[in-house]
Amino acid sequence: MDNDILFHFGLSTTGNDLPKMFGDVKFVCCGGSTHRMETFANYMLQELGMELPTGQSLSNICSTDRYVMYKVGPVLSINHGIGMPSMSIMLHEIIKLMHYAGCTDVVFFRIGTSGGLGMKPGTVVISEEAVNYKFQPVFQLPILGEMKSWPTTLSKEVAEEVQSCCLPGDDFDAVIKKTLSTDDFYEGQGRLDGAFCEFTVKDKMDYLQSAHDNGVGNVEMESSCFAAMTNRANIKAGVVCVTLIDRLEGDQLSTPANVLHHWEERAQQLVARYILKKLKQHQQQQQRK
Amino acid sequence: MDNDILFHFGLSTTGNDLPKMFGDVKFVCCGGSTHRMETFANYMLQELGMELPTGQSLSNICSTDRYVMYKVGPVLSINHGIGMPSMSIMLHEIIKLMHYAGCTDVVFFRIGTSGGLGMKPGTVVISEEAVNYKFQPVFQLPILGEMKSWPTTLSKEVAEEVQSCCLPGDDFDAVIKKTLSTDDFYEGQGRLDGAFCEFTVKDKMDYLQSAHDNGVGNVEMESSCFAAMTNRANIKAGVVCVTLIDRLEGDQLSTPANVLHHWEERAQQLVARYILKKLKQHQQQQQRK
Repeated sequence: MDNDILFHFGLSTTGNDLPKMFGDVKFVCCGGSTHRMETFANYMLQELGMELPTGQSLSNICSTDRYVMYKVGPVLSINHGIGMPSMSIMLHEIIKLMHYAGCTDVVFFRIGTSGGLGMKPGTVVISEEAVNYKFQPVFQLPILGEMKSWPTTLSKEVAEEVQSCCLPGDDFDAVIKKTLSTDDFYEGQGRLDGAFCEFTVKDKMDYLQSAHDNGVGNVEMESSCFAAMTNRANIKAGVVCVTLIDRLEGDQLSTPANVLHHWEERAQQLVARYILKKLKQHQQQQQRK
Repeated sequence: MDNDILFHFGLSTTGNDLPKMFGDVKFVCCGGSTHRMETFANYMLQELGMELPTGQSLSNICSTDRYVMYKVGPVLSINHGIGMPSMSIMLHEIIKLMHYAGCTDVVFFRIGTSGGLGMKPGTVVISEEAVNYKFQPVFQLPILGEMKSWPTTLSKEVAEEVQSCCLPGDDFDAVIKKTLSTDDFYEGQGRLDGAFCEFTVKDKMDYLQSAHDNGVGNVEMESSCFAAMTNRANIKAGVVCVTLIDRLEGDQLSTPANVLHHWEERAQQLVARYILKKLKQHQQQQQRK
């Protein structure tokens, strides 16, 4: 193509010098919410010890209102909205963007929120793999009238390294478990408090218990698509989500907003430590050469 | 429940006086993009002849960054993000909100953008029904491990009335056709320009042509869920989308942004005329009593 338009970002190969803008990116971090990804970008700025000149601040690179994107040195922080269709568009365009920018060895992270199964709220779950509603590690999407399937493999190495970034002094745990991805927050996750509900408390508890028994540690709405698409593109990827609630105990989030925000920082913190560690390793390798 | 938290809106039954805030709502209008729904709210303000006092402007009612919501008299303008999972959360919470507020006879609209099949870009498609990738009028969602199906029926009466709001002087057409809802913008809609593509131009054209032959006029990512959920809740609903491209001619949107914005106004315009007509009819009925 002469000109490839990354429509939902408002960027294009002829309108933007993508190698110059993004050529140094080594980490793509995404999450659902726009504000959270802006916060993460500013947090990375601080962690990387970068100081912006007086009167300057990070600004959103996307020129549409579909996604927001912030860049802090080698780290791209981008939101993916809610659900796998929204995630899928972002991934198509960011994978193309990384390709056009000539980026290599980029690691992708989803830093998210989720409902936990059988663990203390505030615990961070690093996904071993993402599973569908039958607890199978596949992502399905109809293409041209036929249902296609892909494995939802995530990097074991990345998962273990992120877990090792949880230190003895931290006031939370980080566990490696399977992640159940659903297409709805209410009925799709067995909640009784949506606009509709045609099952009993017992049906719900049986299903959630069965998920738990199958090794599922948390439930959210994007990881299957994220794992399948990064795996298909041979991109190393990890999913790090804080649990805001124990779904074996209830459906509604009544924890105060400030506590939830504090918990959300935990997943960001682990990924930030991983990034700093990797950058340091890379720097040491360069010095040795 | 003592307190029902509409988590993604940041509203709750004890924290907000929902009947006072929303009791007069008669039309819920939604669309994907946040800015577009803000624009629509301001457009309705003007169309309803409402003038805000100096120094006042419409402001977003949601206190989270997941959705935005604006209220203009009897009209609620709210965004649903991209894709059916995001649509589904918004609908669960707005249907509960309408219930708690005591609203009756509310009509729901999705005012969106879409790819057209075999029609001039800029044409408005009013959905006859929403269909899935096999062109069946059903919406599917797994609940507690089992795949459930619902019909994607939309109000024929609303569709025809909206179409009748397209006047001879308008520089565009409004047609009633089926709408294909997909879970991805690239491969899921047979585009060749995503990060991956494992089919040929011929495969794509065969599928899109077959959609067209089955009465599909446009392709987007939310209507099946919208139709199924409103139908399930016995809510009269309509889907009005402008087509930004003819997918039988190409994949990429190269039309300038200002032209696209102008086209987006067409769907808003038809829905605004429908709302004004209904409010006038209601007023006349009240006067007769």
